[in-house]
Amino acid sequence: MSSEVNATHITGDPDFVRIVEVGPRDGLQNESKLLSVEQKVHLIKGLIDAGVSYIEAGSFVSPKWAPQMASSAEVIQQLPERKDVVYAALTPNLKGMEAALQTQVNEVAVFTAASEAFNQRNINCSIQESIERFQPVFALAQERNIPVRGYVSCVLGCPYEGRIEISQVLKTTKLLLEAGCYEVSLGDTIGVGSTHQVANLLKALLSEIQSDRLAVHFHDTYGQALANIDTALNLGIRTVDASVAGLGGCPYAKGASGNVATEDVVYMLHGNGLKTNIDLNRLAMVGNEISALLARNNGSKAGLALSQAQSSQ
Amino acid sequence: MSSEVNATHITGDPDFVRIVEVGPRDGLQNESKLLSVEQKVHLIKGLIDAGVSYIEAGSFVSPKWAPQMASSAEVIQQLPERKDVVYAALTPNLKGMEAALQTQVNEVAVFTAASEAFNQRNINCSIQESIERFQPVFALAQERNIPVRGYVSCVLGCPYEGRIEISQVLKTTKLLLEAGCYEVSLGDTIGVGSTHQVANLLKALLSEIQSDRLAVHFHDTYGQALANIDTALNLGIRTVDASVAGLGGCPYAKGASGNVATEDVVYMLHGNGLKTNIDLNRLAMVGNEISALLARNNGSKAGLALSQAQSSQ
Repeated sequence: MSSEVNATHITGDPDFVRIVEVGPRDGLQNESKLLSVEQKVHLIKGLIDAGVSYIEAGSFVSPKWAPQMASSAEVIQQLPERKDVVYAALTPNLKGMEAALQTQVNEVAVFTAASEAFNQRNINCSIQESIERFQPVFALAQERNIPVRGYVSCVLGCPYEGRIEISQVLKTTKLLLEAGCYEVSLGDTIGVGSTHQVANLLKALLSEIQSDRLAVHFHDTYGQALANIDTALNLGIRTVDASVAGLGGCPYAKGASGNVATEDVVYMLHGNGLKTNIDLNRLAMVGNEISALLARNNGSKAGLALSQAQSSQ
Repeated sequence: MSSEVNATHITGDPDFVRIVEVGPRDGLQNESKLLSVEQKVHLIKGLIDAGVSYIEAGSFVSPKWAPQMASSAEVIQQLPERKDVVYAALTPNLKGMEAALQTQVNEVAVFTAASEAFNQRNINCSIQESIERFQPVFALAQERNIPVRGYVSCVLGCPYEGRIEISQVLKTTKLLLEAGCYEVSLGDTIGVGSTHQVANLLKALLSEIQSDRLAVHFHDTYGQALANIDTALNLGIRTVDASVAGLGGCPYAKGASGNVATEDVVYMLHGNGLKTNIDLNRLAMVGNEISALLARNNGSKAGLALSQAQSSQ
């Protein structure tokens, strides 16, 4: 783990919130319109210019599985060399990890779900087996000194199983941390959670896990994401996943919202006196531009309001 | 004040949240497409069927000022007689109040702003003078035993003045309560506030005013409304203004969001174990229907997600 990577993560400033920008990967992967390599590079450069310092830039998976990600290696190779920016990529297996290491990727991520039904249905194995399958990724990461981030999906509900026990989330999170993840991002994949559930889940996890080893990844499918993030912040969480312009949508409800918009998160953080190093007006411009390029509505309310304010000046 | 009106307000149950549905007035007033009397009556009946028990149904102001409200008397006269539903109307002066009392209206509302600049610009008088002008309304309301609700706008920011001092909001709220309002609804008219500001404001007000005399009316212009409402609920507020499908938009930023969507609020409340007596699936159907009628996007994320879930069943 390079000291630069750590620099944004562990600032020691309790008022600093680390934003993990997932738009270029988790976001675009769920957008139907395919972008060119140049368009994706332009998006990521815009994010960096706005002050975003952690970008999930691609995914090294089969192109069949995520067509939008087929150009990840090309995209990442064309990004500026920046010591102060993390370029992360999803690497579900050794082949993906090896491909990622041929690029500028300086952090990788693996993922599983807190739901046995979700894992069985999506990758045909148990939670425990899914993590065992990552062993070659963890081994190579350790050898190359590459930090591994873990994602746990379905932490507040599963499209197949419904309610998920807190004990199940705790077990899955600990397995990932023990396997070698430096941090686990807790995903409300279908956006069903509300604030009291978030508080109950996090209090249970925080009784056994340090707050700087947890991140939140909340979807806005039912409009709850920002309230849920505020709850997490109040409990000491300082890493928040978000997607510029709310890129991504919800694969489980066509037309519904998915990822929370980074602009809305940053608006709240700054309004509350928290720091991100992000220039919100610039970020809003990036969100407007990518929304126009994808011919979709801008999923960020703050982004829309700020661009209206700017255009009326 | 009739006992029926009180019934929903003071249930004595700390888990009950009173929803003040402002869509048919505050919402429609800011929608450009004019609806017929029949369409408005249909909307309000749908809300009642979904369990909504407090509806701001119209406004008795000059039709020049609010063309969508010109039919308020006709609309309210065609509503079902329901002892368990409050039909409220905005009555800024004695003429409006007298007209309202010719209808089924059983509660009225007056409004001012916590910003001197906003009042000067909108109604050409000071805050103090604006409240003095309501004296004939308060006098008639007392004579007829009609509860008067007060609105204070711009409590977290003003489009002309910018930041608003908490002391100014406190002063304005107390003036309205002393003048005869049973409750004051605190409006973040331009939706600029975030959770820490909400907490600071409410803590100051609650040190001098009982929580059951305050309501919150938060706009979602920057996506902050639900997080702000959650903050208010955590501080003991139990009355929340909201607008089905987020009807209304923001008059200060075209294309931006205004009123928070009732469906999203109710989703959060029910998810947190709070009660409203509202059937969320039915409410979501009303929101979809009125959005289609106005040829606008549904402003409720929960409404969109629920209707997708229903249509895919």
